[in-house]
Amino acid sequence: MLAVAMPRLWDLKETSLYVEDMPRALKFYVEVMGLCPLVEDERFCALDIAGRHVLLLFLRGASLRPNELPGGVIPPHDGAGPLHVGFSIDAKDLPGWEGQLASNGVAIESRMSWPRGGRSLYFRDPDGHLLEILTPGVWATY
Amino acid sequence: MLAVAMPRLWDLKETSLYVEDMPRALKFYVEVMGLCPLVEDERFCALDIAGRHVLLLFLRGASLRPNELPGGVIPPHDGAGPLHVGFSIDAKDLPGWEGQLASNGVAIESRMSWPRGGRSLYFRDPDGHLLEILTPGVWATY
Repeated sequence: MLAVAMPRLWDLKETSLYVEDMPRALKFYVEVMGLCPLVEDERFCALDIAGRHVLLLFLRGASLRPNELPGGVIPPHDGAGPLHVGFSIDAKDLPGWEGQLASNGVAIESRMSWPRGGRSLYFRDPDGHLLEILTPGVWATY
Repeated sequence: MLAVAMPRLWDLKETSLYVEDMPRALKFYVEVMGLCPLVEDERFCALDIAGRHVLLLFLRGASLRPNELPGGVIPPHDGAGPLHVGFSIDAKDLPGWEGQLASNGVAIESRMSWPRGGRSLYFRDPDGHLLEILTPGVWATY
């Protein structure tokens, strides 16, 4: 009998956050975080991150029914609570991000230095999600 | 006055899911999804995805207090509900993933064909999070 090689994941490509006020969230992610909307409506917005990742914003409670599209059905999902995501940046951009957050009135809640040399800033989006900006040297793989 | 260039995000590197039973979740993500733990304990597990992304599993309710570490403090966060994340795969691996899920008793809840030619499978992890496996051709950027 032949052993069948296990298929592999290439990346985690889509991450979701659930928000109370879509225009408020969109304004934050575009103006403060510098992301570019790929698709947007009142319920849902997809934001491009440097061509590498798609951040999905969903209006809370608005994706609890199957979403029937011409190509199939997206099953229900939803989320509550202050979720956590981390964005990678070049180490040289850390001072620029400190300035970008300060000039937009976003408080830095914490700063972290990691044993591998990486550094993180922690702050909140308008829904209270815990955002992290991290330089290389946080994980064995980053 | 000089215009200051806005700093840029390189990627979204860390995504969090909140789970009720860490050993159960870890078993699923290692054995079914093929991920490799970078760090693990009873409260928290970090899983490597092909050196490109770090999936963080947190025991629900166990990260509601600031986590004081030698290099700083990780502020509180938590999550509830069936969140949604999407993993990218090579298009040639889609049949292999259908087989991998079937052989592990994971039901495919939906299949989607996207206008750009991409295809998605939707299924659930043991906590009910909505997982998607997607081939290229879903987004303008993927």
